[in-house]
Amino acid sequence: MSMINGFTPEDATRLSETERCLIERRERLLGPAYRLFYERPLHTVRGEGVWLFDEQGRRYLDAYNNVASIGHCHPRVVEAMYRQSLQLNTHTRYLQEGVLDYAEQLLGTFPGDLERVMFTCTGSEANDLALRIAKQYTGGTGVIITQFAYHGVTGDIAELSPSLGRGMVLPAHVRTVRAPDAYRLGAANVGATFAADVRAAIDDLKAHGIRPAAILLDGIFSSDGVLPGPAGFLAEGVALAQAEGMLYIADEVQSGFARTGLNMWGFSRHGVRPDIVTLGKPMGNGQPIAGIVGRPEVVDDFGKNMRYFNTFGGNPVSCAAGQAVLDVIQEEHLQQRSYDIGGYLLGGLTTLAQRHDMIGDVRGAGMFLGVELVTDRATKRPAAEQARKVVNSMREQGVLISAAGPLENVLKIRPLLAFTKEHADILVEAVDVAITSLR
Amino acid sequence: MSMINGFTPEDATRLSETERCLIERRERLLGPAYRLFYERPLHTVRGEGVWLFDEQGRRYLDAYNNVASIGHCHPRVVEAMYRQSLQLNTHTRYLQEGVLDYAEQLLGTFPGDLERVMFTCTGSEANDLALRIAKQYTGGTGVIITQFAYHGVTGDIAELSPSLGRGMVLPAHVRTVRAPDAYRLGAANVGATFAADVRAAIDDLKAHGIRPAAILLDGIFSSDGVLPGPAGFLAEGVALAQAEGMLYIADEVQSGFARTGLNMWGFSRHGVRPDIVTLGKPMGNGQPIAGIVGRPEVVDDFGKNMRYFNTFGGNPVSCAAGQAVLDVIQEEHLQQRSYDIGGYLLGGLTTLAQRHDMIGDVRGAGMFLGVELVTDRATKRPAAEQARKVVNSMREQGVLISAAGPLENVLKIRPLLAFTKEHADILVEAVDVAITSLR
Repeated sequence: MSMINGFTPEDATRLSETERCLIERRERLLGPAYRLFYERPLHTVRGEGVWLFDEQGRRYLDAYNNVASIGHCHPRVVEAMYRQSLQLNTHTRYLQEGVLDYAEQLLGTFPGDLERVMFTCTGSEANDLALRIAKQYTGGTGVIITQFAYHGVTGDIAELSPSLGRGMVLPAHVRTVRAPDAYRLGAANVGATFAADVRAAIDDLKAHGIRPAAILLDGIFSSDGVLPGPAGFLAEGVALAQAEGMLYIADEVQSGFARTGLNMWGFSRHGVRPDIVTLGKPMGNGQPIAGIVGRPEVVDDFGKNMRYFNTFGGNPVSCAAGQAVLDVIQEEHLQQRSYDIGGYLLGGLTTLAQRHDMIGDVRGAGMFLGVELVTDRATKRPAAEQARKVVNSMREQGVLISAAGPLENVLKIRPLLAFTKEHADILVEAVDVAITSLR
Repeated sequence: MSMINGFTPEDATRLSETERCLIERRERLLGPAYRLFYERPLHTVRGEGVWLFDEQGRRYLDAYNNVASIGHCHPRVVEAMYRQSLQLNTHTRYLQEGVLDYAEQLLGTFPGDLERVMFTCTGSEANDLALRIAKQYTGGTGVIITQFAYHGVTGDIAELSPSLGRGMVLPAHVRTVRAPDAYRLGAANVGATFAADVRAAIDDLKAHGIRPAAILLDGIFSSDGVLPGPAGFLAEGVALAQAEGMLYIADEVQSGFARTGLNMWGFSRHGVRPDIVTLGKPMGNGQPIAGIVGRPEVVDDFGKNMRYFNTFGGNPVSCAAGQAVLDVIQEEHLQQRSYDIGGYLLGGLTTLAQRHDMIGDVRGAGMFLGVELVTDRATKRPAAEQARKVVNSMREQGVLISAAGPLENVLKIRPLLAFTKEHADILVEAVDVAITSLR
């Protein structure tokens, strides 16, 4: 089973003896599910701010990892976790103030009636819980997702993640809609197309006697190819689904925590009101913490009728990490920086597009950007092989990005929120060099 | 939806103003899924060794929590996490030595051909992954569990957890068997009864055209009432299932990491060979880390055919915690202590039974013990209300335990592995006082 930007055994000849030994140990201990990035996998030994360091001491500008979003080994998070782990680390069956203080601060970043939070440890668990809540609340099972969605790895959620490839088979209660791809569908059509697809999916679920439960959408459609705009394109389709009694689950595991710049949460760009929002990756800057935020009516219905206890969910050490992340986002003005530097980056990449015909589209919201490579701008023929080469060339230049999308031709650029303009310049230049070298 | 040993709003009159405020905040921020232990919930502020401390500075002997198993805030774990979090915390798509060193050390504690490990963040994720692997490997969907099993909270695994109560409905592909309850079925019959139930379950799955995939069993049947013996009772039933091509998944989330004394893993007491073992709770002494260990043939089949990536799974900080836990278990001889002190405790509780008719049965393996309360030894009529009173009386005395089992009448005693004889004496005396006060 292949993976975009994955190392393959044929690449092994390029590696040092040390690296080959490490890979052999991985295979022997962890098995084949553990896949590596890049033709020459990165051997990481240290992280600091926007940089990762390899075993040779060479540094790599991190424009990919949205977990250590506020900076690798951020001292505020490290110290907060250390202090708390010296004091107490237990579960939520006892009264404890830390989880409540954090919950209050986190909920304060949400609009409207998104007033309850439940903590899990991973984004997969968050989406899995959101789905359970939606089924309980609606009494239905039908779910609508996009064609190349990724929402996680639990049994129920992997089934809602067709981007995982041919190993996954869509179950009978799931319908897919086209992702709102402004580049290929046209910006003017994308909202109406999405709404029409949602309408058809609901009708088809009902025609099969399946009661609709939820529409589950990534806040920036990352695996569908990074599709941020135009702002507002979700509104019509989501309103349709909600009018049918479905819950709208906004998957903010990738697009949350100031990533999209203008807002703390990706869905806000579209003027929609989620029933449940799922959180994860950057929430603890590396500490395993995730969760769901939802409308009281919906969350309470589940909590009253079902038993749910996540042993590590909301533990004091994870909450301390989460609170430090929120503090840093606020104190270091990272949402504004995500907007400013993200815009600066978008400008730089757009300028590159004037010199490189291979760049078919440049798009982004804040610090989540996509550069779609094509061999022909008129036909928009995808340049997947070239995207792979650009990603690997950039790794050799010391800049980390990846690729995404059903056509495997979109550069996935997701810089740490701690980027400055200087870092953005390094990144744009590396893209330039990589694409130039393809000629 | 009620919970054994759960706080109910009617208990609120016993509480201080501070505690009532905290509970009101919890309800407002976290919703009704967040249930508390005890009639007078514990307000925890600090943990150290075998003790938890409340906001008044009063200490509580922890004979319940099997997460901070080697001791609350164990300095070795705290320091290992701190050191690693200053250095690097990222995922397994890059080469990194820490996860491999830990994997090697962990796999060294397993017998036979259990040679591969995959890391998750919670025990629920571990069981969910094990189930996915079993379905992929066997091509089946049928699962056998015990009647009052608990295996976790993802959608697929909550369905295999009937102890969650009436909110859960068993799906068509699941069959339950009676837990091997030596007290109620008779020690001499328990293995044969279990095997006969497994045989019937397999036949019934097949009669319904459902291909059997897995038999999933808790290493000490905790939610079924803590059922440790006699050693070997699992062998016949498990062999039957494996002969039918089913995978035996040993759920060691509760019974693993030296908990059962004689062995590192609970299944070892029964002379069985699992295809997959699932791990969790005490693995990182509070840090969210869990995983599966399995036979190469089984794990590799999944890894080759499916994509699975757990973002936080196997991260360096969690692995550092896990490695410190293994080191401490070895260096502080905690498995031997679990055996010794567990045996001492079993003796103390058995002596109590000579004076208290209400104690129908005392059982245990290492530091996982059950005391079954009955109103009449001849009829074995369960004393659930009395068990609740004992648990709450002990909390007032400063000793933490809980209750379990389908009849809600089994004292669930799970001391930290760091217990000494002095701690065991305090515990036994508290049980004595609590039962005496019932007269």
